Amino acid sequence: MPHLVFRGVAADQLITVTSTLAAELADICECGTDNFTMACLHATNVYGGMPGEPSFAFIEVGWFERGQLVQSRFAETVNRHVAQLGIQEIEIVFHAYREDSYYINGKPVKG
Amino acid sequence: MPHLVFRGVAADQLITVTSTLAAELADICECGTDNFTMACLHATNVYGGMPGEPSFAFIEVGWFERGQLVQSRFAETVNRHVAQLGIQEIEIVFHAYREDSYYINGKPVKG
Amino acid sequence: MPHLVFRGVAADQLITVTSTLAAELADICECGTDNFTMACLHATNVYGGMPGEPSFAFIEVGWFERGQLVQSRFAETVNRHVAQLGIQEIEIVFHAYREDSYYINGKPVKG
Repeated sequence: MPHLVFRGVAADQLITVTSTLAAELADICECGTDNFTMACLHATNVYGGMPGEPSFAFIEVGWFERGQLVQSRFAETVNRHVAQLGIQEIEIVFHAYREDSYYINGKPVKG
Repeated sequence: MPHLVFRGVAADQLITVTSTLAAELADICECGTDNFTMACLHATNVYGGMPGEPSFAFIEVGWFERGQLVQSRFAETVNRHVAQLGIQEIEIVFHAYREDSYYINGKPVKG
Repeated sequence: MPHLVFRGVAADQLITVTSTLAAELADICECGTDNFTMACLHATNVYGGMPGEPSFAFIEVGWFERGQLVQSRFAETVNRHVAQLGIQEIEIVFHAYREDSYYINGKPVKG
């Protein structure tokens, strides 16, 4: 946590920027880089662009809420790294998990 | 936005109906067809049907809330287009994004 | 419903435990096993582990809320089955769907 899930970004491109991205995000969140996970979902575009060729990058961030200021810095940082890859339309949505709905190794984060 | 994400529908089938679907949805939402994106997630079914053979279609719609009436017309339209492909069990869930948690090109939709 | 979506677990491994998992979950939820669906998303890990080699399993459960006690038993059961496969870090998040945002075959669960 936080978990970043990408659609519309090629994994082999994205992987070139994830280390520096994680370092910046860890700085913003004041946590270790080992807290982050990032994955690319495999998906086929079926509207709004060519088949299989995404028209835009969509990034979902799952985390425990850290306030609007941290969130906006987080979004700006993710956006900048993805834009570097030549992607021109980038949307990011944050999902705030409830601590009482989140379990690590079978134990609730907050019981 | 809105973003439609499909599981359990073959991309090559779905793509045959997405243009007419987008046109109808744009009419319902009173917006342009270029607002919509649609993608099929790649997934392997591991319960509730044969492996790799989905027993049902699951569609997630991410959008900013437009009220119950628009939502129900939206769902009926998506359902009708997917049912045309011969799929018999279709579930649709709407995720209302919060404007203060949504960023386009690094800028919050609502700051 | 409930729908379980897995990332970071190989489908061919997971499928060896899904029948017993479904049976236990049905018992906890006091419903039939045919209510459950389980799918593995295809994704490529791009941070926090080797590329393509997930460092942890992430499971999302979409359902209508059933209370904290049922939820915790549900999480413990899912965790135990996934841990059996040799996976050491497992995170589970529950998404409570709103009945007025959920449609089955085009009809709202609650209108």
